[in-house]
Amino acid sequence: MTEENIQVRLAARPVGLPVNDDWEIRREAVPVAGKDQFVAEVLFVSLDPAMRGWMNATRSYIPPVEIGAVMRAGGVARIRESNLAGFDVGDHVFCMTGVQQFCVSDGRDAQKVNPDIAPLPTFLGVLGMTGLTAYFGILDVAAIKAGETVLVSGAAGAVGSVVGQIARIHECRVVGIAGGKKKCDYLVDEIGFDAAVDYKNENLRDALREHCPKGVDVFFDNVGGDTLNTVLPMLRMHGRVAICGAISQYNNTGPVVGPSNYMSLLVSRARMEGFVVFDFAKRYPEAIAAMVGWIQDGRLKSQEQIEEGIENFPAVLLKLFEGSNFGKLILKNTAAF
Amino acid sequence: MTEENIQVRLAARPVGLPVNDDWEIRREAVPVAGKDQFVAEVLFVSLDPAMRGWMNATRSYIPPVEIGAVMRAGGVARIRESNLAGFDVGDHVFCMTGVQQFCVSDGRDAQKVNPDIAPLPTFLGVLGMTGLTAYFGILDVAAIKAGETVLVSGAAGAVGSVVGQIARIHECRVVGIAGGKKKCDYLVDEIGFDAAVDYKNENLRDALREHCPKGVDVFFDNVGGDTLNTVLPMLRMHGRVAICGAISQYNNTGPVVGPSNYMSLLVSRARMEGFVVFDFAKRYPEAIAAMVGWIQDGRLKSQEQIEEGIENFPAVLLKLFEGSNFGKLILKNTAAF
Repeated sequence: MTEENIQVRLAARPVGLPVNDDWEIRREAVPVAGKDQFVAEVLFVSLDPAMRGWMNATRSYIPPVEIGAVMRAGGVARIRESNLAGFDVGDHVFCMTGVQQFCVSDGRDAQKVNPDIAPLPTFLGVLGMTGLTAYFGILDVAAIKAGETVLVSGAAGAVGSVVGQIARIHECRVVGIAGGKKKCDYLVDEIGFDAAVDYKNENLRDALREHCPKGVDVFFDNVGGDTLNTVLPMLRMHGRVAICGAISQYNNTGPVVGPSNYMSLLVSRARMEGFVVFDFAKRYPEAIAAMVGWIQDGRLKSQEQIEEGIENFPAVLLKLFEGSNFGKLILKNTAAF
Repeated sequence: MTEENIQVRLAARPVGLPVNDDWEIRREAVPVAGKDQFVAEVLFVSLDPAMRGWMNATRSYIPPVEIGAVMRAGGVARIRESNLAGFDVGDHVFCMTGVQQFCVSDGRDAQKVNPDIAPLPTFLGVLGMTGLTAYFGILDVAAIKAGETVLVSGAAGAVGSVVGQIARIHECRVVGIAGGKKKCDYLVDEIGFDAAVDYKNENLRDALREHCPKGVDVFFDNVGGDTLNTVLPMLRMHGRVAICGAISQYNNTGPVVGPSNYMSLLVSRARMEGFVVFDFAKRYPEAIAAMVGWIQDGRLKSQEQIEEGIENFPAVLLKLFEGSNFGKLILKNTAAF
């Protein structure tokens, strides 16, 4: 059997939740490395809510994925052919692999990863973009201080769970918002959140008043919509809202729900700030070093949900929007193992 | 004829625009100064959009005006009786006079003003809360830098016109949004704005694209609603939105229009921040000194619209929400002159 490269390409711009017809599964020949390139076999691909935004044609922080192109994704891959100095056959790399079994790279977006430090999927989770987003978002953008009350939405998600743990390490009171008892129990019992609110089964406003009786100093928001709007009037003086995402709004076919309570920012002299992790690229080594330390001393736990088969990407991605995943969602290129 | 103290008291909480029945005009005896108090005759009262918020029962940065109480207002008054050291008969003071002809004060909220420095109404405008709000909002909250594009909504209003002039003094490109040709001409021809957009007669989005071709570094917002929402996607990288007010929303009977484009904050790594001038009280002298200097060298112009008669407050206030005032709206206690 000839080797092939199964790829998931964007066939159409989704309206609302992506459907099967928005994707094309292609089987191409395995690429060959050109001058100053390497070819790597993809092992794990990172699945992220932000992917939904990349599928839209609208202006954003990176260009949209073109129709017909391989879906953009970060992944961990093993080099199998190299004409590029510094990258050897057998090396493991993180790079923008795309959702496919083999990728070609000129090395510019590639970073070598050391599988002796942590299991490979962790380089897509706590030690990947996910963890870096949490690290810089909560420490730099939200600028938490010991003793503050930190609220995290999407708290059982890949970024939220790391945000909460980092805030605990920095001696904040940490409250999470998540959907369902299982996730809420995990937050409190497994990774040390002070409290968790099950937005599917509790009145969010009442529950937040109970668990954040003095109000919220920092809100790290992955969800947007009604959640953000409910939290804004609960901000304490000089509160900060770090806008990381708005997963509740990504698949809207109507207008985005804007935070009608935004004037609470004035009442509380608070600020709401957006950020993109790429801006902190120069400081990735600092963050990775800190997080490796916390993992090693047991204060930072990694939770990954690994699904099988590149060709299953269209269905697995939907788990993010259903909220049925638990921790970092990763797709394994089963054929490579 | 016995002297009397005409007062405007809040009779009911307005729904939407305040109507006559929301007010009671009372004629009381002129107050007498108690121990450590003074009585002053009110000369000019400041009319501000923020007053609309003070009439609501909801939590805000200061308590609501109680039903039956004299309407809260800042004013300039002349002391006519004093039992308070440091405040002498004939002194002029700025204090929270309320909308009435005579006020009593224990001096805690009173500051003496020197009528030799500027005409008395100016202490309610450029040298009052209005000017201080503009000064700290644009220099501290928005933190403008030379060469940046600064956009101001409500630009011909009391705060907006000062914001724009201060930004010009700091070598920014300044664009104003105002309603009507007369106001727009004033901004460009009289007080040095680089451009003005007439939102009543132009398509806001198209006009802003023309006048802010590189986008907006700083948006100083007095208006909220659709204006804020239209500007958010035009923010440049690391843009700042200073939330000073939302006059378009103050008289809504339905829900406030939230900025559905708030995720532009993420795309542009921008922040939106509310502020209240009172927080800068320790630095008022610095700001006043700077603004007196700019007035004296002709770089900062003051525009006031002075209306007559304390009892006319209910009707005059509405000019703010109609947008029919021009510059700082001030009510003169005609009986005192």
